[in-house]
Amino acid sequence: MAVVSEAVRHQIEALNTRYIRAIDDDKLEDWPPLFTEQCLYRITTRENFARNLPLALMECASRGMLADRVVGYRRVNIYEPQRYTHLLSGLVIEPIDATHVRCLQNYAVIRTMVTGEMMVFSAGVYYDRIALGDEALFEERIVVQESRRVDTLLVIPL
Amino acid sequence: MAVVSEAVRHQIEALNTRYIRAIDDDKLEDWPPLFTEQCLYRITTRENFARNLPLALMECASRGMLADRVVGYRRVNIYEPQRYTHLLSGLVIEPIDATHVRCLQNYAVIRTMVTGEMMVFSAGVYYDRIALGDEALFEERIVVQESRRVDTLLVIPL
Amino acid sequence: MAVVSEAVRHQIEALNTRYIRAIDDDKLEDWPPLFTEQCLYRITTRENFARNLPLALMECASRGMLADRVVGYRRVNIYEPQRYTHLLSGLVIEPIDATHVRCLQNYAVIRTMVTGEMMVFSAGVYYDRIALGDEALFEERIVVQESRRVDTLLVIPL
Repeated sequence: MAVVSEAVRHQIEALNTRYIRAIDDDKLEDWPPLFTEQCLYRITTRENFARNLPLALMECASRGMLADRVVGYRRVNIYEPQRYTHLLSGLVIEPIDATHVRCLQNYAVIRTMVTGEMMVFSAGVYYDRIALGDEALFEERIVVQESRRVDTLLVIPL
Repeated sequence: MAVVSEAVRHQIEALNTRYIRAIDDDKLEDWPPLFTEQCLYRITTRENFARNLPLALMECASRGMLADRVVGYRRVNIYEPQRYTHLLSGLVIEPIDATHVRCLQNYAVIRTMVTGEMMVFSAGVYYDRIALGDEALFEERIVVQESRRVDTLLVIPL
Repeated sequence: MAVVSEAVRHQIEALNTRYIRAIDDDKLEDWPPLFTEQCLYRITTRENFARNLPLALMECASRGMLADRVVGYRRVNIYEPQRYTHLLSGLVIEPIDATHVRCLQNYAVIRTMVTGEMMVFSAGVYYDRIALGDEALFEERIVVQESRRVDTLLVIPL
């Protein structure tokens, strides 16, 4: 594994932490600014990812589309308050060039319903392409969920 | 985000690791010394935290009260052996001054009963105020559990 | 706690990350090379570990035995595709000498069946002895699972 500097590592960890806080603190409006203007955010299953199938559970190709999703979510999702708790582990960083890296790491999301019901809602791997700079931004985040079981109410990003 | 030194980051991570080991290794007597003499340890729900309600599931205002809880636990909890496994993610460190920081991070606790039953028992966010020094100590740890469902046997700290 | 250098810490984290990826990406052939030629890989329960009982759910004493297990797994386990997602937290590193450390940390494994069923499959503590060098290798990894409930199909390493 090529070695990246501490500064780069911290920048990437900070980006991931902001990502967690935007979603888990229900500050979804802070989520699109973590991506570059042209970007790819896709949630897919291990099965589709392994077979290279284009099917996605959610896909956005620009920061604007991410923002639209948040607006849509705010409009619709008033009946089922829920909270996510993200857990991440095993960050791998592979340099592409001086200002881009590929990363991957395990994620798990625990979902807590307002009723108190708590479950491991999704688990899998984040495959990222990240642009470094004053602060790191996601050019790509592919969320590969191990389960093919899909919640029909998958409206919050994973 | 303001930047903290590697040394400070390691001190905070070491404090969190000692916290985990004290609880998960059932060495609860090691847990009060991780707090300053005057301190605040509170477990509350997201609902109460968001509404700023004073209701707490557990609250201790000094190292002595923390120690009392451990003594109480040792006296009472002989019937239901259980183990906790803490998982932490996404540490944010915000400097207050040269010797104090605020931190927050996600936590999840998996509970394993002696019978083998295993469940995600609690998930949420730790909001900390930490005093730096030769070693870091908690001035405050507010445990905000996403679920409002409370185990009546909540006797081990989260 | 004695302090280890950043370089050592990174070497150990990299070893743990390779361990996760070998198992979670179903690249089990990459798993034995993470151990020294003579080694100890043991999965046991908290109960047996605490009583110092020699009973193990899985035990291998050399890299060759680890490799044999992988071959055996590839031969047998064709009926029940499943994926693991490892989550680690709270790494403690204790130097033994210039080229060896003891480590421990919490782990949890989420298992996803091909049907979509998802569960916390195992949680506990890794107790490691690690040889440092050009890259770190496990001399020992003792997996202490809190639960005594054992899956009869425990064929993939934890």
